[in-house]
Amino acid sequence: MTPFTSPDLADALDHIKDVSPALAQYTSDTLLDEVWARPDLAARDRSIVTLSALIARDATVGLPHYLNVALDNGVSAAEISEIVTHLAFYAGWPNAVAAVGVARTIFAARKIGAELLPAANVDFLPLDTEAESKRAATVQENFGHVSPGVVHYTTEVLFRNLWLRPNLKPRDRSLVTVSALVATGQVAQITYHLNRAMDNGLTQSEAGEVLTHLAFYVGWPNVFSAMPVVKDVFAKRAG
Amino acid sequence: MTPFTSPDLADALDHIKDVSPALAQYTSDTLLDEVWARPDLAARDRSIVTLSALIARDATVGLPHYLNVALDNGVSAAEISEIVTHLAFYAGWPNAVAAVGVARTIFAARKIGAELLPAANVDFLPLDTEAESKRAATVQENFGHVSPGVVHYTTEVLFRNLWLRPNLKPRDRSLVTVSALVATGQVAQITYHLNRAMDNGLTQSEAGEVLTHLAFYVGWPNVFSAMPVVKDVFAKRAG
Amino acid sequence: MTPFTSPDLADALDHIKDVSPALAQYTSDTLLDEVWARPDLAARDRSIVTLSALIARDATVGLPHYLNVALDNGVSAAEISEIVTHLAFYAGWPNAVAAVGVARTIFAARKIGAELLPAANVDFLPLDTEAESKRAATVQENFGHVSPGVVHYTTEVLFRNLWLRPNLKPRDRSLVTVSALVATGQVAQITYHLNRAMDNGLTQSEAGEVLTHLAFYVGWPNVFSAMPVVKDVFAKRAG
Repeated sequence: MTPFTSPDLADALDHIKDVSPALAQYTSDTLLDEVWARPDLAARDRSIVTLSALIARDATVGLPHYLNVALDNGVSAAEISEIVTHLAFYAGWPNAVAAVGVARTIFAARKIGAELLPAANVDFLPLDTEAESKRAATVQENFGHVSPGVVHYTTEVLFRNLWLRPNLKPRDRSLVTVSALVATGQVAQITYHLNRAMDNGLTQSEAGEVLTHLAFYVGWPNVFSAMPVVKDVFAKRAG
Repeated sequence: MTPFTSPDLADALDHIKDVSPALAQYTSDTLLDEVWARPDLAARDRSIVTLSALIARDATVGLPHYLNVALDNGVSAAEISEIVTHLAFYAGWPNAVAAVGVARTIFAARKIGAELLPAANVDFLPLDTEAESKRAATVQENFGHVSPGVVHYTTEVLFRNLWLRPNLKPRDRSLVTVSALVATGQVAQITYHLNRAMDNGLTQSEAGEVLTHLAFYVGWPNVFSAMPVVKDVFAKRAG
Repeated sequence: MTPFTSPDLADALDHIKDVSPALAQYTSDTLLDEVWARPDLAARDRSIVTLSALIARDATVGLPHYLNVALDNGVSAAEISEIVTHLAFYAGWPNAVAAVGVARTIFAARKIGAELLPAANVDFLPLDTEAESKRAATVQENFGHVSPGVVHYTTEVLFRNLWLRPNLKPRDRSLVTVSALVATGQVAQITYHLNRAMDNGLTQSEAGEVLTHLAFYVGWPNVFSAMPVVKDVFAKRAG
């Protein structure tokens, strides 16, 4: 199911038409029929990107619709659970808690219960000890004396805990992270996380199409601010 | 009508007084009586700047009030329709859709029907082919291999479609864009769009006063981050 | 009272568990039991930082809870009144007005009346004339011709009025300002305001711990964008 065939969407388009017939047409013809169907990024990935952008920007009005679309597009409830948790750290606790308020209603309506959700304590994915030690040493050297607490939780809670939870693949976790960074204009963190995303399996053409998709959901300026950084990452990886 | 004489405003000021008598006084004496009456920017322009800032920041609480003020200040329903559509692209789809939810209620209350709104399909303003070809070539060269989709839609949907819609003058479309950029801290895009705004007829003293007005609606830090870029644009155009 | 013993919190944690048992556990074990109890920043200061972050980001969902926590942690109603007013200028009027909507309900429930709030007109703290003249001269030289209005209100309303109101200590006013800057990614303004905060009595270890606290409430990326600037301020002051 694409967003265009969602049962509530005809109503939503009518509401948009009450204010802007042009926006209704851009929504149905350009965004939903055309952009969502572009081949360079799967509909499931577009759903992950969209949810990440909405939650990172606290745009809860559209969230019920896009949570349903995500579930219909093959994003599992367990993955949505992990996406919300991941964004508590990458977009802020209040954003995740606001998303919880919406998601639990959708989960209840679709009879998604506790047995479908990842437990609080799970067996972790194996840690790439060498890469993680290198990352931790760099951050400790740079910021150990600036904020010992940030350095501590970055290692212990983020990279030795959150990122190792198995119910969201590292590639998808990276997709969530990069989407949130572009969505909130956090250009400075894109280099590290886009490289990590591509190391985790996101292709260059997928990454470019993530930007196309995000242009519509977070606005052109956020995407144009990200593009020079993305370009630089692509160039350096190409060697 | 200034915002200060709006029928709901006495109530709003009383509510503010329940938490902060000082904020109520700054609101009535400094912001509404004084700033809105400053001569360097027309009340109609201030309404466009305010709406753009609120929609770009998804600040929907004040939107009903400021939509009514805008209509009273001479911003037409057709122009508001185009402002919302324009901001879908420059602030993100969810922001525009949230604004639709508010605006359709205001439009209904004021009996503004479909006949007052621009159609989805309109006769476009003439395109400045030379300037647009140059812009498109630069963007293609810079980012054609980073995100072909962004480059495609920037040309086909933004500059050869949205910007040519006639119901919002290019100067006002630029005013919306620049206001949204300052409101969301998108410093990197200000140089291009402020130059475009001034090419489209925004004067330097109006641009400076847009910053004064925005300081109150989007906070001093966004404006102080924009000022060095604005200064540089002014200097280069003078030089 | 820590946030964990708030009467509504058990419900809130149950709601989070409906979507993510992991997020509920991070919330109770890591954020509330551990981070809030860390010794480098008092619970009262953590409440000021949290309120500032929520208001600056317009995250009103959690605001009722954290307003109650702040009052329980020793932030007075008069101080909350001044924090909201201060953030009108440093995060934008609509953010302050949205906070008013929440705070007046909390104040009413706790029978906090007008007699506990600072008056609109108060006796100002003494002005450091030399430092303020220097600041005003620098801003006038840099931006006097860019936006005379911004320069005028920065001096007359911010530094010769708002900052001199006595019901929020300068050190706490600075804590609010720095928290809002980090919370909204306004990196460019951190140098001036962190120096001012430390001149006003915020210690280096408190400042580092403000970042730890904010990482959870505004997301890791905002904090990692701020850290190089904070590091530079610490180094220059030590040097």
